[in-house]
Amino acid sequence: MEVTILGNNSAVPAHHRHPTSQVVKIKHYAFLLDCGEGTQMRMIDFSVRRSKIQHIFISHLHGDHFFGLPGVVTSFNHMGRQEPLHIYGPHGLKDILDLILQLGDVPLQFELVVHELQPGLQLLIQHADYEIWSFPLQHRIPTWGFLFKELFSRPNVIKAYIDEFGLSIANIKDLKAGLDVVLPDGRVITTREATTPPPPAQVYAYCSDTVFDESLAEHIRGADLLYHESTFTEDLADKAAMTKHSTAAQAARLAALAGVKQLLLGHYSSRFGDLSPLLEEAGKLFPNTQLSIEGQTYSTVPPKK
Amino acid sequence: MEVTILGNNSAVPAHHRHPTSQVVKIKHYAFLLDCGEGTQMRMIDFSVRRSKIQHIFISHLHGDHFFGLPGVVTSFNHMGRQEPLHIYGPHGLKDILDLILQLGDVPLQFELVVHELQPGLQLLIQHADYEIWSFPLQHRIPTWGFLFKELFSRPNVIKAYIDEFGLSIANIKDLKAGLDVVLPDGRVITTREATTPPPPAQVYAYCSDTVFDESLAEHIRGADLLYHESTFTEDLADKAAMTKHSTAAQAARLAALAGVKQLLLGHYSSRFGDLSPLLEEAGKLFPNTQLSIEGQTYSTVPPKK
Repeated sequence: MEVTILGNNSAVPAHHRHPTSQVVKIKHYAFLLDCGEGTQMRMIDFSVRRSKIQHIFISHLHGDHFFGLPGVVTSFNHMGRQEPLHIYGPHGLKDILDLILQLGDVPLQFELVVHELQPGLQLLIQHADYEIWSFPLQHRIPTWGFLFKELFSRPNVIKAYIDEFGLSIANIKDLKAGLDVVLPDGRVITTREATTPPPPAQVYAYCSDTVFDESLAEHIRGADLLYHESTFTEDLADKAAMTKHSTAAQAARLAALAGVKQLLLGHYSSRFGDLSPLLEEAGKLFPNTQLSIEGQTYSTVPPKK
Repeated sequence: MEVTILGNNSAVPAHHRHPTSQVVKIKHYAFLLDCGEGTQMRMIDFSVRRSKIQHIFISHLHGDHFFGLPGVVTSFNHMGRQEPLHIYGPHGLKDILDLILQLGDVPLQFELVVHELQPGLQLLIQHADYEIWSFPLQHRIPTWGFLFKELFSRPNVIKAYIDEFGLSIANIKDLKAGLDVVLPDGRVITTREATTPPPPAQVYAYCSDTVFDESLAEHIRGADLLYHESTFTEDLADKAAMTKHSTAAQAARLAALAGVKQLLLGHYSSRFGDLSPLLEEAGKLFPNTQLSIEGQTYSTVPPKK
């Protein structure tokens, strides 16, 4: 599973950084996660194929997380989209979209379904290849985090068997599908002996915007990759508490508490031209931390060292 | 009076061109004219001081003309704006802004007044230095054009007098204010003899989006600079008529018919990577034509040859 950052800034655009948006890719499926102003242009800039976007998830109704949504929806229409588009967002989002489409007299060529996010942990989509969940964050207005889980239903073929018996691609496919294989010399390789069980789901957890909240740990426990907002550094902890945002240190503390594997920082305050203080602060508490940078892609599987 | 182009494309962003927005400057006053998605970023890109924007004018409620407005309004708030902001736009715009501000729970720190545009020619603002008018265009939904008039109330001092009598800056100021001047040697220079009447108003006319409509000529007659949409070339006149847009040739025909001094093309269809066919087509019918290019500034006073 991969996450491409389209925007990593908070509130007002600055330092060539843009409001929040990300593309999450699971196998050949792509999802848009928040949709700040300019998201459709950022998709062009970073060669994200807009037609590939299946569904959209909006965390909350502050502008820096959804002012790009009407543009994405109407551009889909201009570009001839026909597949249905499902949007998952807070109460009121449907009213905004309906009003804008009605006043602009825009007849959509595709089915638009807006789903209202509910309190508590909620399974939004159950698919053979993935699950997507929402859970509440604590911010100034109703806000949700999301969990993207890539599911693996097929076992892995043990490499030693491939090498020893010279298994073909077709043999490997059969073994993964649970079929035993008969070799040209008559020997039988059983799926039972030659495979290991499918790996556990890969999990990407997204928390933006939120105050530091230990209770989030239960939802994101063990995630392979956690994106957690880090609007401020610790010297601005008062400001973070007042505006219901987090510091980089708090993001790192939650990452450690929840036992996640990697932490990705983002939603930076415009006061930071240089982001290294945020990375440094978080890295001391949780070494496996990276800054999210626009245009870059991060994997739930960390690069091998 | 000057016009800086922030966005010159129609509908879907393409070829690094952005949806419609312009900054009109009259003396030290600045106005935003339409506000497509990304306008606030374009203002940063082109070093337009956002705090200088006095009022905003929205021609119609298609997204490529106003999806950047909520971002501009909320960013003004983040940046501590205190002066009132007046927005002039179609019926329904206030509902959209109110709903977005209410759902985002954004308490504005400044007074926001949304004025609803009315049928017919309407004087929106009467100021000692300028007038701003709206008039109806013909498009798929209610749409307005705008006239910006720079008024000159003070006479010009004749250059020969300045040279002959060695008039000081203070002398010139007095003469422009209607006061006679007594020279050190006792001679009196009267404002009547040494000045010519103030020049006529400079007029910028803005027509986007509209079908070719001869009756527009009455509103824009003699304008110093006309921006007229030219979404298509003449070979796509059917498509222009169907979508209620204009061709470059039609823009040129209206410019000639209305006896304007300069024509500025814009609102280009995404099918044009190269814009020269549009310029060529219009230039044949109305030689004093320019392409509007993002980041460039155009004056109502043409450059001296």
